[in-house]
Amino acid sequence: MAFKIMVLHGPNLNLLGTRQTDIYGSQTLEEINASLSELAHGLGAETRSFQSNSEGALIDALHDTREWASGVIFNPGAYTHTSVALRDAITAVELPVVEVHLSNVYARERFRRQSMLSSVCIGTITGFGSNSYGLAVRALVTRASGV
Amino acid sequence: MAFKIMVLHGPNLNLLGTRQTDIYGSQTLEEINASLSELAHGLGAETRSFQSNSEGALIDALHDTREWASGVIFNPGAYTHTSVALRDAITAVELPVVEVHLSNVYARERFRRQSMLSSVCIGTITGFGSNSYGLAVRALVTRASGV
Amino acid sequence: MAFKIMVLHGPNLNLLGTRQTDIYGSQTLEEINASLSELAHGLGAETRSFQSNSEGALIDALHDTREWASGVIFNPGAYTHTSVALRDAITAVELPVVEVHLSNVYARERFRRQSMLSSVCIGTITGFGSNSYGLAVRALVTRASGV
Amino acid sequence: MAFKIMVLHGPNLNLLGTRQTDIYGSQTLEEINASLSELAHGLGAETRSFQSNSEGALIDALHDTREWASGVIFNPGAYTHTSVALRDAITAVELPVVEVHLSNVYARERFRRQSMLSSVCIGTITGFGSNSYGLAVRALVTRASGV
Amino acid sequence: MAFKIMVLHGPNLNLLGTRQTDIYGSQTLEEINASLSELAHGLGAETRSFQSNSEGALIDALHDTREWASGVIFNPGAYTHTSVALRDAITAVELPVVEVHLSNVYARERFRRQSMLSSVCIGTITGFGSNSYGLAVRALVTRASGV
Amino acid sequence: MAFKIMVLHGPNLNLLGTRQTDIYGSQTLEEINASLSELAHGLGAETRSFQSNSEGALIDALHDTREWASGVIFNPGAYTHTSVALRDAITAVELPVVEVHLSNVYARERFRRQSMLSSVCIGTITGFGSNSYGLAVRALVTRASGV
Amino acid sequence: MAFKIMVLHGPNLNLLGTRQTDIYGSQTLEEINASLSELAHGLGAETRSFQSNSEGALIDALHDTREWASGVIFNPGAYTHTSVALRDAITAVELPVVEVHLSNVYARERFRRQSMLSSVCIGTITGFGSNSYGLAVRALVTRASGV
Amino acid sequence: MAFKIMVLHGPNLNLLGTRQTDIYGSQTLEEINASLSELAHGLGAETRSFQSNSEGALIDALHDTREWASGVIFNPGAYTHTSVALRDAITAVELPVVEVHLSNVYARERFRRQSMLSSVCIGTITGFGSNSYGLAVRALVTRASGV
Amino acid sequence: MAFKIMVLHGPNLNLLGTRQTDIYGSQTLEEINASLSELAHGLGAETRSFQSNSEGALIDALHDTREWASGVIFNPGAYTHTSVALRDAITAVELPVVEVHLSNVYARERFRRQSMLSSVCIGTITGFGSNSYGLAVRALVTRASGV
Amino acid sequence: MAFKIMVLHGPNLNLLGTRQTDIYGSQTLEEINASLSELAHGLGAETRSFQSNSEGALIDALHDTREWASGVIFNPGAYTHTSVALRDAITAVELPVVEVHLSNVYARERFRRQSMLSSVCIGTITGFGSNSYGLAVRALVTRASGV
Amino acid sequence: MAFKIMVLHGPNLNLLGTRQTDIYGSQTLEEINASLSELAHGLGAETRSFQSNSEGALIDALHDTREWASGVIFNPGAYTHTSVALRDAITAVELPVVEVHLSNVYARERFRRQSMLSSVCIGTITGFGSNSYGLAVRALVTRASGV
Amino acid sequence: MAFKIMVLHGPNLNLLGTRQTDIYGSQTLEEINASLSELAHGLGAETRSFQSNSEGALIDALHDTREWASGVIFNPGAYTHTSVALRDAITAVELPVVEVHLSNVYARERFRRQSMLSSVCIGTITGFGSNSYGLAVRALVTRASGV
Repeated sequence: MAFKIMVLHGPNLNLLGTRQTDIYGSQTLEEINASLSELAHGLGAETRSFQSNSEGALIDALHDTREWASGVIFNPGAYTHTSVALRDAITAVELPVVEVHLSNVYARERFRRQSMLSSVCIGTITGFGSNSYGLAVRALVTRASGV
Repeated sequence: MAFKIMVLHGPNLNLLGTRQTDIYGSQTLEEINASLSELAHGLGAETRSFQSNSEGALIDALHDTREWASGVIFNPGAYTHTSVALRDAITAVELPVVEVHLSNVYARERFRRQSMLSSVCIGTITGFGSNSYGLAVRALVTRASGV
Repeated sequence: MAFKIMVLHGPNLNLLGTRQTDIYGSQTLEEINASLSELAHGLGAETRSFQSNSEGALIDALHDTREWASGVIFNPGAYTHTSVALRDAITAVELPVVEVHLSNVYARERFRRQSMLSSVCIGTITGFGSNSYGLAVRALVTRASGV
Repeated sequence: MAFKIMVLHGPNLNLLGTRQTDIYGSQTLEEINASLSELAHGLGAETRSFQSNSEGALIDALHDTREWASGVIFNPGAYTHTSVALRDAITAVELPVVEVHLSNVYARERFRRQSMLSSVCIGTITGFGSNSYGLAVRALVTRASGV
Repeated sequence: MAFKIMVLHGPNLNLLGTRQTDIYGSQTLEEINASLSELAHGLGAETRSFQSNSEGALIDALHDTREWASGVIFNPGAYTHTSVALRDAITAVELPVVEVHLSNVYARERFRRQSMLSSVCIGTITGFGSNSYGLAVRALVTRASGV
Repeated sequence: MAFKIMVLHGPNLNLLGTRQTDIYGSQTLEEINASLSELAHGLGAETRSFQSNSEGALIDALHDTREWASGVIFNPGAYTHTSVALRDAITAVELPVVEVHLSNVYARERFRRQSMLSSVCIGTITGFGSNSYGLAVRALVTRASGV
Repeated sequence: MAFKIMVLHGPNLNLLGTRQTDIYGSQTLEEINASLSELAHGLGAETRSFQSNSEGALIDALHDTREWASGVIFNPGAYTHTSVALRDAITAVELPVVEVHLSNVYARERFRRQSMLSSVCIGTITGFGSNSYGLAVRALVTRASGV
Repeated sequence: MAFKIMVLHGPNLNLLGTRQTDIYGSQTLEEINASLSELAHGLGAETRSFQSNSEGALIDALHDTREWASGVIFNPGAYTHTSVALRDAITAVELPVVEVHLSNVYARERFRRQSMLSSVCIGTITGFGSNSYGLAVRALVTRASGV
Repeated sequence: MAFKIMVLHGPNLNLLGTRQTDIYGSQTLEEINASLSELAHGLGAETRSFQSNSEGALIDALHDTREWASGVIFNPGAYTHTSVALRDAITAVELPVVEVHLSNVYARERFRRQSMLSSVCIGTITGFGSNSYGLAVRALVTRASGV
Repeated sequence: MAFKIMVLHGPNLNLLGTRQTDIYGSQTLEEINASLSELAHGLGAETRSFQSNSEGALIDALHDTREWASGVIFNPGAYTHTSVALRDAITAVELPVVEVHLSNVYARERFRRQSMLSSVCIGTITGFGSNSYGLAVRALVTRASGV
Repeated sequence: MAFKIMVLHGPNLNLLGTRQTDIYGSQTLEEINASLSELAHGLGAETRSFQSNSEGALIDALHDTREWASGVIFNPGAYTHTSVALRDAITAVELPVVEVHLSNVYARERFRRQSMLSSVCIGTITGFGSNSYGLAVRALVTRASGV
Repeated sequence: MAFKIMVLHGPNLNLLGTRQTDIYGSQTLEEINASLSELAHGLGAETRSFQSNSEGALIDALHDTREWASGVIFNPGAYTHTSVALRDAITAVELPVVEVHLSNVYARERFRRQSMLSSVCIGTITGFGSNSYGLAVRALVTRASGV
């Protein structure tokens, strides 16, 4: 049976590919989701994806993963730095969650250096553009295969 | 006329009874709401309850209590530590609000020791599992009876 | 063609005119929106307005302004002090945003002195009651006319 | 056999009912102790009480509870915010201790927001005047009965 | 009788229009004062203006406004961030004072985010270049007319 | 009737005149008390004095002053910097309390610069050796005479 | 030969007796200076006085005291909290300086609790209204007489 | 003549051997005192010991050591982290004081990492259970013998 | 021509596979280096590796990479949190550097949450055991291929 | 044409050579200015000098240098640590400014370790007594000659 | 078989006996090592010793102790306050390590009060000059003998 | 006899002239050392120089200067901000040490504003490129000649 992965995108990521393309790249969110799906398929896995600008909707989505997913890839965007509620949701779902960021958040404003979420995720991948997601898919699949 | 109480549950509390039952107990949120209703009834009061993972929906719910409630019991979950907006909503509704927590938040991570809400509530009850809610019902009813 | 302005109101501002009227004045939000519209009309501009208690809905609304508006007036209420996600949304829409507050936030609690948003807005107007909005309309129109 | 509760009052509480009665109410400490005793009796429990202005005497009293009590209700007054020694005494007695406060300490000076004791108590009840003690009696008895 | 406004300019503002014109604009201080006078006149008000690089001279000037002015517009420049003495002077004159800044101080160095003065002013206007002054004139006149 | 003053000496002050006489002077506590008594007598006042190394005993002594004294002179020694309980006692007795120190505490270790008590006293006198007490007697008598 | 004392008044003190008289009393600065002169005379001393709102002028005045004075009484007003330059001037003049304040600065805003000057003065007298100056005169004279 | 050592035990140490014996060992305080006495005797020294839960009583005891002791071994327990008064007492007695702790306080809660006392003691010995006292006896005797 | 990667291991990593194998896994550093080499080969790249416990030797090694490498994978171990010198070295070599960690450093002590290096690396991969290195190889190769 | 240098001396430096000569040396300010003039002359440069205790006058002086000087040597004294206004003036004059100090400010009180000015100067020279000025003359001349 | 102890000396300790002998004593490092060896021999133990100024070399030495030692005495000198890498090495070697210091580090600069190492050592001995080492030998031997 | 100066270069300075030449200039370290030697010679002094990336090697080098040098010029590079061990070494060698930096460290990242070394050096010279070294040679020679 395929390893099932939820790919969760936080606030403002719906604008990917349409704004500040010099920083975030020209791929839209749909294109990223599509190529992740393809990559996962090649590794014997499946992905679903969801984006919301609402902290509450992201918590709901995390809760829902308990029904079907084996792992979560989460780009929490700006909620990374402020959301205790998402932290509690990650703890509650009891699934391996990988935190990803497109840009190197450590090279930006001071308040972006603090993550409320990293310590309850299994790992973080930061700074590789849309490839951050791809590496996270590999990380989860490798981990699941016990290699 | 019965004293009417809004029981408001914040993020992740919909999972009660289904996760980490060693910490939070095995009662589901519906069971807690039901026994609170029963307790209130015995004290000549009524309760309604609402849960949401969304900060905005909780603010909306607080606003709505102005129409009918005489007091509010609020377990703000993780929003306790971050939400200035809920603080303003509590101040705006001009009703007595009791802040409750199931677990002893002071014995957990450092960032949970700060509450943005306590100073605008009339009091707090922390650490007694689902009985924290029951004690809050008694606190509101006793206060209303002027005893 | 008229200069088009989005007037965005954050959490708890739906209660304007109905609570603490000694502090916030007796004008309701509709009345404020109506008189802004009139003022704008006189200056050859147009306004639309939106209020929400939800951080996510406010981000959605900011995203939508990209389709039609030339400037934004934003009273972020309590989210001023906590929301990195709204900050990112302001940066993303690449429109001039004016931050307004009815009351002098600097004369209130310590945590209200920090704004997560001011540094990505073009300017701030604070403390003039509902006239803060009116001054912001003038600020945007003057700025657009290059005077 | 009755559930036995030590009710411990910290510094300045001997003045209750004789000072700032608008804040702390007009009940004297003896009256509070008497009505707690009555309440406990109705719940099949017993209370003893002790007040001291001395940190050392309060530690001594906590040590003594080990001989006979099943639970402790402790209003540590100002020592809440400064006493590591009382914290160690609470840990040492290995009894359930409930921290209570008459007023909402979170709505007062900044230094009162920190408690050295809360994290080693089982729970806290704050802000309900003398009823804070009564709720604590109920909390201990309910907890002991395993309900 | 005309509403009389003192326009007070703090340190380094005498150089306006002659330095860093890309940031601060090409208008000199005299030109700004002249156009403010004209704007005020059209609104049935009068302005006088004064600039000094000396904290003491600015305090003296604030004291003098008590004799004749109905309101003050104050761009305290760098003294915004350090001067308790100017804060006390603003409190002492018991006139409405509007704090203005040409540039968005929140988007600059960290130490510029703290204002010693904002909490004793009635409001602040920041970031609109020389128009910040004009908006402040309107704010004071509108406020005085009770509209 | 004579104005009655309690002179309260905190921890380690019993050693005055016997240790570090280069810093604290060679007068013993009894000698200081005697000359204060004489000074008070000449001003139509009376003094009693008490010294203790115990925070609890000092609180007890403050409580007792309510029965007979019209003012308190308090050298809290090291408890100045740590005791919230003495702060609450000063507030509770509702008498004018003058905080005195023999040495200039501001010129010593950093932790001595913070006083938990100054803000609830009417005033402080620091750095004049045993004359600090004498000046405090004059301050209380002058204040009482309404001059 | 008479003991000569410079009485130095800092920013905003020229307004004494004309503003906030409920806080600072109704005596003007001239009246205070006159009664200090009288008090000093009775103790075999002489006073001169100077007031300025300018930090630089106060430094100049401190420098000048080296020519003729035996002691300085200094109410630095708001410069207390910010001026390293006045601190250096006090150190440089090598005269005994007494810091005085009319009101209890410790009971006001947080930033007023820090004094840059106290540690280089011989002592401080705070909170006794205009009598703070009188006590300082006595303190200097007593100190000089070696009693 | 024998070198005389005061062994002073702070709050909660009277419970040694009866609580948390896995952490603090099973030796009671009397047993520790007895074996210290024996060790000291073998090194040509004498010990007396005293325990109290009261900060004031410990200060009294430190003062008394001036009459007869040549050195002090002090386990200040929780007062280590909070007591400025004990710090002043140590300075006042002008005897060599060795600070000892049974457990490694640096491996415990953050607030235990700060000692108010270490900087006025001659040295500290931490983490060796009851042997910490024995090593302190040796340290004092070696030091006295000038080896 | 093959893409050449320096794999740099910081302090204590020579002990991999021989200590705390439950945390860090049972692979030795040689085994990790070998499998990285194999992985790189499959992707058309080459790796060399170096380990040192010395900050200076690691700086030397970084300098040397300028001669031959196209990218660097760096597990700086404990130097992550303290070394400004390694930060400067990374900046100086002007090669893409990926920071990797075996364990999730964000879930450990507070001082491990700060990285002096992350902001000058292109990205970070944390928490995936020895697979963190493998993902970094892929990240560098993908980046170089411009995909 | 000669390279022209303004030598600006801040507060309390008028006392040089007359106070604390063991620290600051026995040269008066005039002597220093004279020998700087001589040194400059030998290097084909000219100096003018100005001293003031007033922050405002120093700002005025900095502004005036724009008319004639090619570089500035500035000993800001105590204003180093507090003056944002001087910082802005340095930025505004757009001339190379060298910050000098006679004594090693880093070896003094903690608050002297922060400079508000260093980051907008081209360099700093600290700790060489009056030779600090001479080295600054050389630094400016060397820099101007492009060597 | 003898109990084997590594005695590790950190940076600058090679200068012992040749610098600041009034503070650190006149014994050279060789003399200290020799007398430790003798003391250990008398207690049925053996010591080896090593000194380095290099953090990396000290880590190497700690690693090597795993081969032969039963305990470590470590004077980390200045690395005490900064080295996370040595902390990790201590944890990795899984031997009892005693941290020693010659002088009382708590009585020196503020930054010396923090130890990165204490919490992973079994205990600390500070302030007894070269006898600190001797006490550490006794501590390790006593601990090993289970007395 | 010639005045002998050790010129010590810290981490990454071996890359001078080969990296970021727009910031650090195009002179290599050898060229700088050569021209310093020449300058020294002209002033009757001699220089030797040493560079290392290793903190330990720099300490060793400082120790060695005690044998032959009369002064030290030290560019500690990144170790400026972190090394307590180098600070101790500077104190131990008891020679005048001048701290130099090529660039203005105060205009860079926040963590570069703190120097662990400045307070134990006799002075600092910062921001003049390779001329910082030359000025330091002059400073040492002038100081030695007592001029």
